Amino acid sequence: KELQSRLSEDSGGAMSKEAFRQAVNNTLERRLFYIPSFKIYRGVAGLYDYGPPGCAVKANVIAFWRQHYVLEENMLEVDCPCVTPEVVLKASGHVDKFTDLMVKDEKTGMCYRADHLLKDYCKDKLEKDLLLSPEKVNELKQVLAVLDELSAEALGAKIKEYGITAPDTKNPLSDPYPFNLMFATSIGPSGLSPGYLRPETAQGIFVNFKDLYYYNGNKLPFAAAQIGQAFRNEISPRQGLLRVREFTLAEIEHFVNPDDKSHPKFKNVADLEFFLYSREEQMALKSPIKIRLGEAVAKGTINNETLGYFIGRTYLFLTALGIHKERLRFRQHLQNEMAHYAADCWDAEIECSYGWVECVGLADRSAYDLKAHTEKSAVPLVAHETYPEPREVEKLVITPAKRELGLAFKKNQKMIVEALEAMSEAEAMELKAHLESEGKAPFQVCTLGQTVTLTKDMVSISKEIKKEHQRVFTPSVIEPSFGVGRIIYCLYEHCFYTRPSKAGDEQYNVFSFPPLLAPIKCTVFPLVQNEKYEVTAQLISKSLTGAGISHKIDITGTSIGKRYARTDELGVPFAITVDSETSVTIRERDSKEQIRVSVEEVASVVKEVTEGQSTWGDVLWRYPTHTTNTADD
Amino acid sequence: KELQSRLSEDSGGAMSKEAFRQAVNNTLERRLFYIPSFKIYRGVAGLYDYGPPGCAVKANVIAFWRQHYVLEENMLEVDCPCVTPEVVLKASGHVDKFTDLMVKDEKTGMCYRADHLLKDYCKDKLEKDLLLSPEKVNELKQVLAVLDELSAEALGAKIKEYGITAPDTKNPLSDPYPFNLMFATSIGPSGLSPGYLRPETAQGIFVNFKDLYYYNGNKLPFAAAQIGQAFRNEISPRQGLLRVREFTLAEIEHFVNPDDKSHPKFKNVADLEFFLYSREEQMALKSPIKIRLGEAVAKGTINNETLGYFIGRTYLFLTALGIHKERLRFRQHLQNEMAHYAADCWDAEIECSYGWVECVGLADRSAYDLKAHTEKSAVPLVAHETYPEPREVEKLVITPAKRELGLAFKKNQKMIVEALEAMSEAEAMELKAHLESEGKAPFQVCTLGQTVTLTKDMVSISKEIKKEHQRVFTPSVIEPSFGVGRIIYCLYEHCFYTRPSKAGDEQYNVFSFPPLLAPIKCTVFPLVQNEKYEVTAQLISKSLTGAGISHKIDITGTSIGKRYARTDELGVPFAITVDSETSVTIRERDSKEQIRVSVEEVASVVKEVTEGQSTWGDVLWRYPTHTTNTADD
Repeated sequence: KELQSRLSEDSGGAMSKEAFRQAVNNTLERRLFYIPSFKIYRGVAGLYDYGPPGCAVKANVIAFWRQHYVLEENMLEVDCPCVTPEVVLKASGHVDKFTDLMVKDEKTGMCYRADHLLKDYCKDKLEKDLLLSPEKVNELKQVLAVLDELSAEALGAKIKEYGITAPDTKNPLSDPYPFNLMFATSIGPSGLSPGYLRPETAQGIFVNFKDLYYYNGNKLPFAAAQIGQAFRNEISPRQGLLRVREFTLAEIEHFVNPDDKSHPKFKNVADLEFFLYSREEQMALKSPIKIRLGEAVAKGTINNETLGYFIGRTYLFLTALGIHKERLRFRQHLQNEMAHYAADCWDAEIECSYGWVECVGLADRSAYDLKAHTEKSAVPLVAHETYPEPREVEKLVITPAKRELGLAFKKNQKMIVEALEAMSEAEAMELKAHLESEGKAPFQVCTLGQTVTLTKDMVSISKEIKKEHQRVFTPSVIEPSFGVGRIIYCLYEHCFYTRPSKAGDEQYNVFSFPPLLAPIKCTVFPLVQNEKYEVTAQLISKSLTGAGISHKIDITGTSIGKRYARTDELGVPFAITVDSETSVTIRERDSKEQIRVSVEEVASVVKEVTEGQSTWGDVLWRYPTHTTNTADD
Repeated sequence: KELQSRLSEDSGGAMSKEAFRQAVNNTLERRLFYIPSFKIYRGVAGLYDYGPPGCAVKANVIAFWRQHYVLEENMLEVDCPCVTPEVVLKASGHVDKFTDLMVKDEKTGMCYRADHLLKDYCKDKLEKDLLLSPEKVNELKQVLAVLDELSAEALGAKIKEYGITAPDTKNPLSDPYPFNLMFATSIGPSGLSPGYLRPETAQGIFVNFKDLYYYNGNKLPFAAAQIGQAFRNEISPRQGLLRVREFTLAEIEHFVNPDDKSHPKFKNVADLEFFLYSREEQMALKSPIKIRLGEAVAKGTINNETLGYFIGRTYLFLTALGIHKERLRFRQHLQNEMAHYAADCWDAEIECSYGWVECVGLADRSAYDLKAHTEKSAVPLVAHETYPEPREVEKLVITPAKRELGLAFKKNQKMIVEALEAMSEAEAMELKAHLESEGKAPFQVCTLGQTVTLTKDMVSISKEIKKEHQRVFTPSVIEPSFGVGRIIYCLYEHCFYTRPSKAGDEQYNVFSFPPLLAPIKCTVFPLVQNEKYEVTAQLISKSLTGAGISHKIDITGTSIGKRYARTDELGVPFAITVDSETSVTIRERDSKEQIRVSVEEVASVVKEVTEGQSTWGDVLWRYPTHTTNTADD
């Protein structure tokens, strides 16, 4: 009921979305789910604190993530520092490429994201300029569509063409230039060791691949995981809690044999059905379609079983926390969105008042990261596969005749020997053919900068059959990466609704958090201020502590209706009201239904419904319902 | 038995301590409890990763801390960013005072901590120079004793006097100068907003005091807590895992009425008895004494009940994790060690191979922090106390006679009125006396830069009795601050021992972690490689997962003794060996005793002993013991 009114409000116009967002954020900030960081000093854009209930929600999300992924899949969890030396992020490509294009107000030096200014200009024009020609409308829409892919030059040209100026001063703007989004620092006192705050946790796992592979008994596949802070020095953070400068990531790197990306547990998720938005549908301007995961993998829409398995597990993870199935989709990256080395990428996108928001990235990054660190560190980050039976492999054998080469080329002999040994198979076979047909052949020696003439007796080239017992290869990595704060913000929006007070004069806010997510599982209220009831409330509190249920007692004299409203706003799923010394009522937040349970049983009943052994529907049958006459409720 | 051999080894000479440390650290690094960060790039001094078992140990310590403090005491947990703007750390004093004295090699620019060089020189001299005069010996010892308090000038003078040069090059050294230990960075793209990585988590709580106080219903006392990363850019990190550049802190700020630092739950810890090392005993060069906590507070050795309560709770916390009671003491800060504003400070110190290490600081910081931020931010961080009955308070009333002042001083009237109203009580009473005795009096008006003469009719000064309903004050803060990594390192040392293999040819390493701390609670081994046993092992694994017990299956064909040794080295407290399809054995790590339990019961027995409902001693009576003939064990 309330759900539907909320959804219809959501899908309404831009204004109602903003009003909804305002209502959610007012509640969140008033109840300290979050606090703008360093607020008494007027804050810092893009930095937020989690206040007490937000902190509990975050701890619940992280604990469930650890349970759902790390423990369930026996992943190797690591915990690496945020401070990272430059060499690591040079190898990963972040020092050179982790940039946004920026323009400066030429007079004040104020900085803006170039694409934001262009986007705002186009949107504004499209919304407000009623005299635009159809061609102009098309042009502006086209600019918006390709915004993410414009080069610095193209962006600069558009800004000039449209005459865009600094929004705050109307001053002219500089040309766009790349600004690196990593927070820079210096490690140690010398000032000679540049470092950065990590922009992601993944690199800490990649550089440890060798040790982790050994720890896993030198066996593939295995996954490592890390939960921790990451940092992006955004040029001008917008979109409140969605685009921040410091955030918590939970990342998995699943290392797998590139020739075998099957997954033994894929069958457990193959029958899940949810929205996929494949590259094909996007290109055809179609909508996402609901499809069986098994079918999407079988058809090749999703590249492989392991990637498919993680997509399925992520669907289960997000919906268990309270994300609505209908407002969740997995969108495949378009070819030009994807890094050149990636085999396939999907984003879990969640719809909220800001639109569809990327909350989880699931990418098959092939062997890129391990190869990059192997090259830069000279430590081979590779896996070994021992064949059950030795395999016969054709091998190229190049044997330069050093004596003949020495006689012919004197001091250049060494360079020529090295060049011969460095030939690719194709080059060698071509040289061999040439020598055999002509008796001699030209041979280019790069290191000498000249081409020499070789004769048949100077090198022997052949292919031999050799027995191999193992092969060495760089594993592929499949990376599910979770933006914890973004998921939490979307959960807030999906769980929020309002309902009128009984008198109809007020709107009450409710967060319909599932017990798993709720910051506090239960409150205990003595119905009236009265010593006997308070003693009973304390008794119940002790048994709840014993059962490991987080809860709060509220002994203020406020009306029971007000107290319910207060806990509904924190998303507390159950409220125990003490109205006698022998039995009490338990009220469920969303239905407002109440049951009567004995004081002895109450903790175990609450435990059952918060830990998921039973649903509220189950216990509703077992205990007498209680109807209240309180006007407030 | 083993415990004693370990302790006696520990208390032996410096060499045996180092050998012990080496053995612990070899095991820790080999089993990936920790990994030097960015190892494939030759690492960065003072940065370490937690590998899989270390990460699990850390998660256990943090979960227990949250249970023991946050949930038990209903604390308000918050989670603030690491990146902090300069203004916050300017107010807290860190920008100006969070420094170490550094010297530079004048030729190479290499940096050293000045006190380290002087310390090394003195120690080395005392150890190796056998010809030192008794006077010289005394002098060097005296220098070591006051090392922490030497000014830059005094340190520089000593370095010159002793002719200390750069250890690596023997080049001359610069004069000592302060180096700020915070990692500096810049927030946003302009380069105009300096920031730092927080050196502690506490400031994030202080700046939120106003909101948290409101959240707590405007009531004192209450505590806020935060767990998170903190950073110190050490000049030259030494002491391995103890002095690092990035670490996890768990901090509590308990806000309390400065006039009432009693604690309702103090009685729960008053009977604990453990080692206190008071200021008095330290000054008298005596040893720490074992004393009842209640007595220490009653005698005033510990300043107040709330500080005493946290000391007691911290004793319980550390010993529950596995810190040895006899190697734990609470040492009071000496007067000159303590910040001038602090009322009392105690460090929980744990003995390990590096000596006594400060792992928890417990300080009554009075109102310092809240006052500092109130002043800098101009936001009053104060509490209100409403009196049960209004109180009569004597109040100074100054009433300037504006008409008379206007007639006499014209346009200067306003300044004089303001100056009169701004007088302190002492100034006002002096002026009143002067006016009454002489009829007129000189009055200095700073804002005018002159002294005017006032007559009796120009101002009335009196004291009146007023009724006050509340008072406004700055709360005191009691701060327990936990270095999570240091506690974990000391736990590793306290839990480590070696024992010979049965054959006597090898030493096996064991971590005697209590189940609460152990990274994995239990392993499951099929006795021999055999499909039936493996199926049973998988069945047991499922029931362990159901019971929420973290565990590992080891189906390698390695001998059972080797497999036990492998899990002992990870500190796994219980091993289940599958030697039939109906019943299995459970082995306890330290006693190596085994009991035989049915397959159906095994998970619930392991749950009992790992979650603390029963001890191993309890279950040993209930089940038949099992004796093994395996040569390995």
